[in-house]
Amino acid sequence: MKLNILGCYAATPRSFTNPTSQVLQIRNHLFLIDCGEGTQVQLRRNKIKFSKINHIFISHLHGDHFYGLVGLVSTFRLLNRQSELHVYGPKGIKEIITLQLKLSNSWTNYPLYFHELSEKTPQLIFEDDKVSVETIPLKHRVYTNGYLFKEKTGDRKLLIHEALKYNISVALYKSLKKGKDVYNEDNQLIENRKVTVDPEPPKSYAFCSDTVYSPEIVPQIMGVNVLYHEATFLETEAHLAEPTRHSTAIQAASIAKAAGVETLILGHYSTRYSSQDNFLQEAKTVFSQVELADDGKEFLFE
Amino acid sequence: MKLNILGCYAATPRSFTNPTSQVLQIRNHLFLIDCGEGTQVQLRRNKIKFSKINHIFISHLHGDHFYGLVGLVSTFRLLNRQSELHVYGPKGIKEIITLQLKLSNSWTNYPLYFHELSEKTPQLIFEDDKVSVETIPLKHRVYTNGYLFKEKTGDRKLLIHEALKYNISVALYKSLKKGKDVYNEDNQLIENRKVTVDPEPPKSYAFCSDTVYSPEIVPQIMGVNVLYHEATFLETEAHLAEPTRHSTAIQAASIAKAAGVETLILGHYSTRYSSQDNFLQEAKTVFSQVELADDGKEFLFE
Repeated sequence: MKLNILGCYAATPRSFTNPTSQVLQIRNHLFLIDCGEGTQVQLRRNKIKFSKINHIFISHLHGDHFYGLVGLVSTFRLLNRQSELHVYGPKGIKEIITLQLKLSNSWTNYPLYFHELSEKTPQLIFEDDKVSVETIPLKHRVYTNGYLFKEKTGDRKLLIHEALKYNISVALYKSLKKGKDVYNEDNQLIENRKVTVDPEPPKSYAFCSDTVYSPEIVPQIMGVNVLYHEATFLETEAHLAEPTRHSTAIQAASIAKAAGVETLILGHYSTRYSSQDNFLQEAKTVFSQVELADDGKEFLFE
Repeated sequence: MKLNILGCYAATPRSFTNPTSQVLQIRNHLFLIDCGEGTQVQLRRNKIKFSKINHIFISHLHGDHFYGLVGLVSTFRLLNRQSELHVYGPKGIKEIITLQLKLSNSWTNYPLYFHELSEKTPQLIFEDDKVSVETIPLKHRVYTNGYLFKEKTGDRKLLIHEALKYNISVALYKSLKKGKDVYNEDNQLIENRKVTVDPEPPKSYAFCSDTVYSPEIVPQIMGVNVLYHEATFLETEAHLAEPTRHSTAIQAASIAKAAGVETLILGHYSTRYSSQDNFLQEAKTVFSQVELADDGKEFLFE
């Protein structure tokens, strides 16, 4: 599981900082999460192949989380994209994008599907044999969802040299991967654990931005490997968090601690701060395994 | 008169090139012309004060000319703008911007006026005592206007030491600037030309992008000081110009020559070209006074 931060600063794009966008590589998927202005340029700078993005998840309709979407959708057309693109986001997102495509007389030449969200409880919005994605209802000034990405437990790993040693037919390998005992070519029963090992434990990633401090989300994200949680403010500006419906570094760390996550990544820093060092310092007073997001940073979770 | 090129490349923003946007400083105005994605960042990089922009002119509703507008309008709000903002552009632009502001629940706290255009003949769309702005109807795949910015002839320049020498009352200075002869304190008639000189000749700037080769615009832009004309293609791709409704460098130069302009600036280069040298070379076979636009370049016309 790999996470590329394209942008992690609040409010407006600036000369050297970008609004929220990130790419999660999980199993065979490349998911784009939020798409602030300039995201397509950040994708280029981070050498991420446009054609590998088939799913885009938008948390909410504040500009710093989606103003780059229409440009990316248009650029996909110019790049002669053929494959389906699925966009998940709050109700209204379809109207915003299609209105602009209509008025520019440039509809996409690839299939573009919108999955509009309006539920206030967690919803399973994507699932295949390897990964699932659920909404995490957040509390912000407008309707907002975080997203919970979960790998599924894979098949057992076949030890091919052991299988050969026990003289097992290739036709039975699939059964072995599914955990079954099998009879070999000599009609002996071979216990599964002799020729397979456990699969990698499935990983999970929770993206929570933007939100006021919301302990209600803890049960849903309990035990995730990685939690990205917004931390717009430091303690000096803690009084601004509740009225603007944002969180502090300490509040983000409190959520991470309560949910027993492995790693907390902080982001969505207010651009009033010239350094992020204090975010790390304050969060660490509550929770030890904290990382700072930064534009262009790559996190690898193995 | 000063022109700052913020972006001058066609189609999509890339790592080191920006879509169309420029700032024209003319008399006491700072006019923003087109506003592709990333324009607000380019304004910061070029150290142009956001608060001095009160008028934005959008040529047409293709993304590379206006996808940065909604972000700029939103950032003006975050910067606590108070003064009026006037946006001129094709019919539909108001719906696009207001829909996004509505769905993000963040209407502007400053007065925002849209002046929607749909006429197919030149229209006077802005005028004060110093400057006028007209549309230049262009021919592209969607409804498109160029813009013609013209200084008005100013007052005559008073030679203050001469006025003092002739013992003229300060109360009459205004009349002198308007070109009138006046009686001095000794009741002698003083000829205007003895105490004033001609004002600076008024300057003019024509912005023409995007358009197929359109000699019809020549009478309107005849004799302008500066013409910015799109040149998307070189001769090797000249066959693409007509079907995509764009121009070549040579076509842009032909318009400049026919209109007898002082200076031609080329821009809107297709991103297929890695260098712009051939644009200059080809245009110069038709018209000598050619300049190449480039992102971050400043042109001063005195």
